[in-house]
Amino acid sequence: MIIDCHGHYTTAPKALEEWRNKQIAGIKDPAQMPRPSDLSISDDALRESIETNQLKLMKQRGSDLTIFSPRASFMAHHIGDFKISSTWAAICNELCYRVSRLFPDNFIGAAMLPQSPGVDPKTCIPELEKCVKEYGFVGINLNPDPSGGHWNSPPLSERSWYPIYEKMVEYDIPAMVHVSTSCNPCFHTTGAHYLNADTTAFMQCLTADLFKDFPTLRFVIPHGGGAVPYHCGRFRGLAQELKKPLLKDHLLKNIYFDTCVYHQPGIDLLTRVIPVENILFASEMIGAVRGIDPETGQYYDDTRRYIEGSALSPEDRFKVYEGNARRVYPRLDQSLKARGR
Amino acid sequence: MIIDCHGHYTTAPKALEEWRNKQIAGIKDPAQMPRPSDLSISDDALRESIETNQLKLMKQRGSDLTIFSPRASFMAHHIGDFKISSTWAAICNELCYRVSRLFPDNFIGAAMLPQSPGVDPKTCIPELEKCVKEYGFVGINLNPDPSGGHWNSPPLSERSWYPIYEKMVEYDIPAMVHVSTSCNPCFHTTGAHYLNADTTAFMQCLTADLFKDFPTLRFVIPHGGGAVPYHCGRFRGLAQELKKPLLKDHLLKNIYFDTCVYHQPGIDLLTRVIPVENILFASEMIGAVRGIDPETGQYYDDTRRYIEGSALSPEDRFKVYEGNARRVYPRLDQSLKARGR
Repeated sequence: MIIDCHGHYTTAPKALEEWRNKQIAGIKDPAQMPRPSDLSISDDALRESIETNQLKLMKQRGSDLTIFSPRASFMAHHIGDFKISSTWAAICNELCYRVSRLFPDNFIGAAMLPQSPGVDPKTCIPELEKCVKEYGFVGINLNPDPSGGHWNSPPLSERSWYPIYEKMVEYDIPAMVHVSTSCNPCFHTTGAHYLNADTTAFMQCLTADLFKDFPTLRFVIPHGGGAVPYHCGRFRGLAQELKKPLLKDHLLKNIYFDTCVYHQPGIDLLTRVIPVENILFASEMIGAVRGIDPETGQYYDDTRRYIEGSALSPEDRFKVYEGNARRVYPRLDQSLKARGR
Repeated sequence: MIIDCHGHYTTAPKALEEWRNKQIAGIKDPAQMPRPSDLSISDDALRESIETNQLKLMKQRGSDLTIFSPRASFMAHHIGDFKISSTWAAICNELCYRVSRLFPDNFIGAAMLPQSPGVDPKTCIPELEKCVKEYGFVGINLNPDPSGGHWNSPPLSERSWYPIYEKMVEYDIPAMVHVSTSCNPCFHTTGAHYLNADTTAFMQCLTADLFKDFPTLRFVIPHGGGAVPYHCGRFRGLAQELKKPLLKDHLLKNIYFDTCVYHQPGIDLLTRVIPVENILFASEMIGAVRGIDPETGQYYDDTRRYIEGSALSPEDRFKVYEGNARRVYPRLDQSLKARGR
């Protein structure tokens, strides 16, 4: 089985975006503020948005199950206050839940949190609990920069984040560390902000001792870990200067990297420098890079081809495709086993 | 000959830092503000600081000439106003100039600019001119984020930067795009902020058409280009989505990457995905990562070993070590030729 640990609902019916635009307009003009019940999307519309997009490509490319969360760039935690984020997160998570019910063999949810700049992260816990307990979600997306590119929240190692981590440990769910759209003109969202956040999050963990406080806490760093594998020597050297343990002991029992790296040499590097136990298959399909690579004639984000083209043994490929995901997302494993998979 | 295009004066005599601390104290208490003439460092002290550090390691490792600029993390453009930065830049540049006079076979200067957050970049031009005309410097370091991690300056493609570019074109000098210390607790300076800035700068150029306006403008992106080579597929795909030309036409006539990547797999990736014409040898020695890699028993930043260990042909190695630097830094080439090298 091939599990893609990183898919977003980027193809939701247009009505969702229209509702969000009204919600944003309602921040300035409360008369325009829509109610959640104003959004009506039928099961047929959901089905079509998935069958003609993600599911079609999953079948073509041979992946079986996607851990599916709301569209990352649309989380936009910087817009409005906690109430705005809270309503928006609830709507987006519910749609992913409905997709997971319509296609239980192919999709399982991961939650967007109702983060808001300057608001205590513990306010996210009710939504997190609902998603795990009622929706059967198996992970969360945690945004280290709810400001959208201004980076004015404390590092992930600070205690204000701990209530989230306590819940993650309690429910045994990992967080994918994933920012949202950049509203800072310096940072292109998918070309700079996403990758910078991945590198930044790793370094925030490297300089701290977060995993001493939470030995079972697990982060998945997306987009192949940003710049981390390419600069692995730098990070090993910096850990050494800071008198930290070797990365394998200091971070790699808790941090995992996905395979959203859109060319063969990148995947070859990732699989060469990062222990195979720390690599989870993912494509972020349909996402930032939707075109066909003229150098290969294949979709950039058809990352399975790069795994197949890598030097990984069949046993290691199994770990990347399935084994590691079952270990990092135990609730996914339980859900699969309950269905005889 | 082996030219290292990226060295900073990280080993300047302690008196420099003491003067700077007084200057910083003088921002709040003008009575403490030192005069530039209060700083006195003898030629012998400069000589010792170089001979026992950079020059010793250059000889051990076999590099011949370093393009030498003030310590990047000490630029700290976010401290004080333009006048503070201006005095500080002048002092730091002069020290690099004196080093280049004491060791003319081994060091040639690149200028730090007196940037200051919110201040028009064109205010940097007098210092730039002095460094090129009086000091014989062959390049500059340009900080895309003088705020030190708050990223509130316009992207490098904005017109406010153009006066700098006009001077660079006039003098035919490149800029290394290099941030300074991070005062944002989210970003570790050398582990996150430096690499993020490299990726960010590349993406700022990718989304814009800066090199249409300045076809001969040249940027060196340090630290192996941040996350760019590892995510080359992503950047090619994003350029395609944005209807930009192929990267080789859109950016690679103007953007170069150094080899400050501190492990063999990283250099192997760099030399595999980036055209050899765009790679310049560098070590940033003595810099962020000073230790010995337990996996190799060698210094992390002894990057020559990785170039020697790569698949590059002798002809390509010549380009990386010398040929490209002479082309990207024409004033360096002229200076070398004038000395019969």
